[in-house]
Amino acid sequence: MPSELEIAMESLIKVFHRYASKEGRSGTLSRRELRELMENELTNFLRSQKDPAAVDKIMRDLDTNGDGQVDFEEFVSLVVGLSIACDLRLLFCCVGLKP
Amino acid sequence: MPSELEIAMESLIKVFHRYASKEGRSGTLSRRELRELMENELTNFLRSQKDPAAVDKIMRDLDTNGDGQVDFEEFVSLVVGLSIACDLRLLFCCVGLKP
Repeated sequence: MPSELEIAMESLIKVFHRYASKEGRSGTLSRRELRELMENELTNFLRSQKDPAAVDKIMRDLDTNGDGQVDFEEFVSLVVGLSIACDLRLLFCCVGLKP
Repeated sequence: MPSELEIAMESLIKVFHRYASKEGRSGTLSRRELRELMENELTNFLRSQKDPAAVDKIMRDLDTNGDGQVDFEEFVSLVVGLSIACDLRLLFCCVGLKP
């Protein structure tokens, strides 16, 4: 029986490949695939950005090797950044501070 | 309803804090807390290391600020590394290569 952490790691891989395999190279996210992933999997985060160009900016930030695609390692850095931001927000809420 | 990716991110935060709050500083993992987390949440990975000092080595690698503790950001880098390794292994299996 996989642990909660193993299930979470498996989800990161599954979600990435679910969208990365929709068009073009199957192991990377195109701009359109990244947009679709974010609209479906990070709806609240995307909405909170209040910036129509948010996906394009995030694409530029993530695409560290400049190939116009987002590979799994680049994708996971987005997940890490968001998780750390969420963790900090939780911490602020616990100690009654405004993040 | 949270998405699969949001649930996975939440799990990373919950699992970390479940173990980090057991002793000492509640926002970081001590060596003992890291060992317990790995023994319970990454059992197969730990067993595959076949090295009794594996946790100590991983602790040294993760503790980038040298405070003898592993904070959430340092912990997530372990999860990223393992996820990328798993993703590569999946890739090798798909194309019939030995990792």
